[in-house]
Amino acid sequence: MTMANARSHRGGKRNRGSRPWASKFKDEAPDPNAPVWIYGHHPVAEALSNPKRTRLRLVASRNAARDLPPGTDAEIMEPRAIDALLPPGAVHQGIALLAEPLPQPSLEELLDHARGGTLVFLDQVTDPHNVGAILRSASAFGAAGIVTTRRHAPPITGVLAKAASGALEHVAYCQVTNLAEALIAAKDAGFLALGLDERGEALTSVPTKSGVALVLGAEGSGLRERTRELCDKMIRLQTKGAIGSLNVSNAAAVALYAIAALRE
Amino acid sequence: MTMANARSHRGGKRNRGSRPWASKFKDEAPDPNAPVWIYGHHPVAEALSNPKRTRLRLVASRNAARDLPPGTDAEIMEPRAIDALLPPGAVHQGIALLAEPLPQPSLEELLDHARGGTLVFLDQVTDPHNVGAILRSASAFGAAGIVTTRRHAPPITGVLAKAASGALEHVAYCQVTNLAEALIAAKDAGFLALGLDERGEALTSVPTKSGVALVLGAEGSGLRERTRELCDKMIRLQTKGAIGSLNVSNAAAVALYAIAALRE
Repeated sequence: MTMANARSHRGGKRNRGSRPWASKFKDEAPDPNAPVWIYGHHPVAEALSNPKRTRLRLVASRNAARDLPPGTDAEIMEPRAIDALLPPGAVHQGIALLAEPLPQPSLEELLDHARGGTLVFLDQVTDPHNVGAILRSASAFGAAGIVTTRRHAPPITGVLAKAASGALEHVAYCQVTNLAEALIAAKDAGFLALGLDERGEALTSVPTKSGVALVLGAEGSGLRERTRELCDKMIRLQTKGAIGSLNVSNAAAVALYAIAALRE
Repeated sequence: MTMANARSHRGGKRNRGSRPWASKFKDEAPDPNAPVWIYGHHPVAEALSNPKRTRLRLVASRNAARDLPPGTDAEIMEPRAIDALLPPGAVHQGIALLAEPLPQPSLEELLDHARGGTLVFLDQVTDPHNVGAILRSASAFGAAGIVTTRRHAPPITGVLAKAASGALEHVAYCQVTNLAEALIAAKDAGFLALGLDERGEALTSVPTKSGVALVLGAEGSGLRERTRELCDKMIRLQTKGAIGSLNVSNAAAVALYAIAALRE
């Protein structure tokens, strides 16, 4: 039996050409207050039903407009015209919404709101598809929010929102300057910090009353040393096969499921 | 509490521009015997250590070549020259292997080999990233193989192999003409067919001795009617949150984990 986890591609350098979401300058934090195009059926439907979302512009193909709730006012456009509004390759399914970013809670507010529940800390997980899928799993398994760094983490874009499939409207995405400090604050607020690592202990129990901070590192490099030191315990997912590691979003989904099951 | 599953993007039509892997003609099955470029550290390392892989050409950057096992003969190339050998956007990390496809077992051989174990049946899951991640999870949680259709399923490409992160060398990928007939054959061979669907029963027990065929449908459309009818039982993953569905590869990972845990 081998050990699990979110370990995998060394390096993980990617060809910029395949990443329309990649910031031109790696360390340049994009403006978190800039409006964002959200596209695709699920992300737009969830955004439209979120009273906290400020809509700026809604465009839809004739077909997609038929599925909108009655009374929803959309500009009807040809799908190709919608293409032109969005980043190349955006899978919009005939519908796109330009919206103000959601107001995100401060770390203190999130820790207070999530008290006794589950939070996910992401240590330099950079792929927006993975982060979006983790938001979706967090929503499915009842985690209250994701805490990640402002740098070396994807900004909230249409790509991330699409992968989250609407979960962005339900799960807080709290970007902090320093993950270690945020983790210390979470521990001070009573959260047990569990780091996922293939060398950890098998996950067999979690506290049922105090909160849990599930800490996940980047595929490849894993948790940074400082993050690892701050974890109360390192845990692993029990695996059986030749390839013992999972894609980081799959590892997150399994860990969130296992934690939810153990807390019942 | 809402119910889980691999349901999501309606339609799922994608912009071809973002899918270098998409076949030009949707129903044209690519030649399964054509050599394939495998790239990236993990996929290439696993392929090199698989005695069943026939190597045709190995190329590596000077840096990546240092990590090869001693005595491995590679053509040293600039990363850009490797780019030129691969599809646009291929994340090769400085290493690529042109190899013959692996000999895949017939369905009968796979059913015999997997007897008493777990198999994954994919009903028109088309995204190679998802199928690759499912191979990886299958390997991690000890499933013996994936059964999928020849059409409406991704061929074995570098993209799929990269997402599988080496698992392609360990998990059989059996492509059949008719999934319903394959499922009937599996049931005849003693496998219990469990279809994943948000309207199913909570997954609380699985047989410990007979085999299990976990059946997953496409995000959006789910299982086809005929596939659904053939399942012995529809199961769901217990979820809690507002967004009750998971990305299909995340749903597969959680289901394989839950099945493995229940069978222990």
